[in-house]
Amino acid sequence: MDDLFHQLKTLSTTEVRAQIRACAYGAHTAGLGKKHLQANLAILPEAYALDFMRFCQRNPKPCPLVGVSDTGNPHMQTLGHDIDIRTDVPAYYVYRHGVLSESVEDITDFWQDDFVAFALGCSFTFEHALERAGIPIWHIQNNTTVPMFTSDIQTVPAGPFHGAMVVSMRAIPNAQLDEVIAISKQFPMAHGAPVHVGDPAAIGIADVKKPNWGDPAPVLAGTTPVFWACGVTPQVAITQAKPPICITHKPGHMLITDISDDADTTILNPKTIPTGETQ
Amino acid sequence: MDDLFHQLKTLSTTEVRAQIRACAYGAHTAGLGKKHLQANLAILPEAYALDFMRFCQRNPKPCPLVGVSDTGNPHMQTLGHDIDIRTDVPAYYVYRHGVLSESVEDITDFWQDDFVAFALGCSFTFEHALERAGIPIWHIQNNTTVPMFTSDIQTVPAGPFHGAMVVSMRAIPNAQLDEVIAISKQFPMAHGAPVHVGDPAAIGIADVKKPNWGDPAPVLAGTTPVFWACGVTPQVAITQAKPPICITHKPGHMLITDISDDADTTILNPKTIPTGETQ
Repeated sequence: MDDLFHQLKTLSTTEVRAQIRACAYGAHTAGLGKKHLQANLAILPEAYALDFMRFCQRNPKPCPLVGVSDTGNPHMQTLGHDIDIRTDVPAYYVYRHGVLSESVEDITDFWQDDFVAFALGCSFTFEHALERAGIPIWHIQNNTTVPMFTSDIQTVPAGPFHGAMVVSMRAIPNAQLDEVIAISKQFPMAHGAPVHVGDPAAIGIADVKKPNWGDPAPVLAGTTPVFWACGVTPQVAITQAKPPICITHKPGHMLITDISDDADTTILNPKTIPTGETQ
Repeated sequence: MDDLFHQLKTLSTTEVRAQIRACAYGAHTAGLGKKHLQANLAILPEAYALDFMRFCQRNPKPCPLVGVSDTGNPHMQTLGHDIDIRTDVPAYYVYRHGVLSESVEDITDFWQDDFVAFALGCSFTFEHALERAGIPIWHIQNNTTVPMFTSDIQTVPAGPFHGAMVVSMRAIPNAQLDEVIAISKQFPMAHGAPVHVGDPAAIGIADVKKPNWGDPAPVLAGTTPVFWACGVTPQVAITQAKPPICITHKPGHMLITDISDDADTTILNPKTIPTGETQ
């Protein structure tokens, strides 16, 4: 698998998705399609779609909506060329009534005519920008998963969707705090500026060494813990809403889109993009 | 009315909305609540809401969605303190089956239990930023309405919503083009970067002196015509979709929100905003 991973790193987004579609690759996508937007996935029956979309609009930092399918149509036409959401994500979680029931590599047999697929921006985009700026990110350097916490910041509810905001933590050298905030603010479609800088207790985190998801990461001397809204938030809201069925990506196993990390919209439609400016 | 207008310019957003709610003021809102986001309005029956929201997501430049009500609830809680969308806009247009039928100052008697209200960002926000940067804007200096054109750029359709993108034109001094593009790009919730710079014919505009809406504005020597996606686009899409009823603001008569022009989201929820950074 490691050899294949290193080979995939050299391929285009279309070629990587072809490997994933053929079930030749079913592992995490960190580092793949590096200059392109990757996305969290949530698929819901249409009866829940309007409220979920309102939930995303009202909570743009944890739930930055980058693409929505037509009802029953598995093709995400605005996010790339020939994306079939039933096959083009390496691994999926199937939830029934808010409880995880299956983990699969293909959801063709699960697809329903009333499904609406939602793609939400993820933190890979701003992490790549931070890396390019020479900011050390401990969990990347140490090949662990970013620590994630349940905060006491409440999301703005919409219909049955509600719950606490989940945040991810990266300890940033004090001298680089302003730069990190400014860089991440440039990516509103990838969680944007932090939701909190400093004391974890101020947002309800009792012990910053004990994340609720991911791996612990130290807050070294001379660094400050910085908290960003996290893409696990909508999964918590879905657990609260308990739809009869919901399909998400398996964490870390994202949809790789054809949208450039620095595009000024997440819509793939050359005619609406100024010549030479983006994508 | 002029005296009242100059008096309103000194008032807070809440105070201006109170005057509008009392039907003491029913004219345009340009220049009012100056440091706050103003919004275009579209109210539709819930049966059309999911497709309209998909249309906005797919066309973020003409249709930057800044707020959505719950179904049947006229309060726009994420956009301000105590906003009642039935009374707090100076003037409304009522469309039936895609055709304008009435112009009114209050829609309390039109409100339906299945209505969903959508607020979309407008160009006032980036125009204020251009003014602060000392960029001359002809239609503002000459107190006319910005010229708007039907372009041949097609929107990305969603359900019954489709049609050509409407664009607004501002002629910018050549030396300031880069600065203008950079400034407007900072406001994705107010149409963002231009969709076209230069030759009007390249986006299907035969005569830049003859706008489809608004007033003509000259392209003076040493300036270049710059075209932004325009908030009239969703009204054209609604005309195509022909819902049994739809209510919009009367052009220029916008919803004044409590969201700062420079806020990093359009959601009024102090707990999700980093201390001291925004709003």
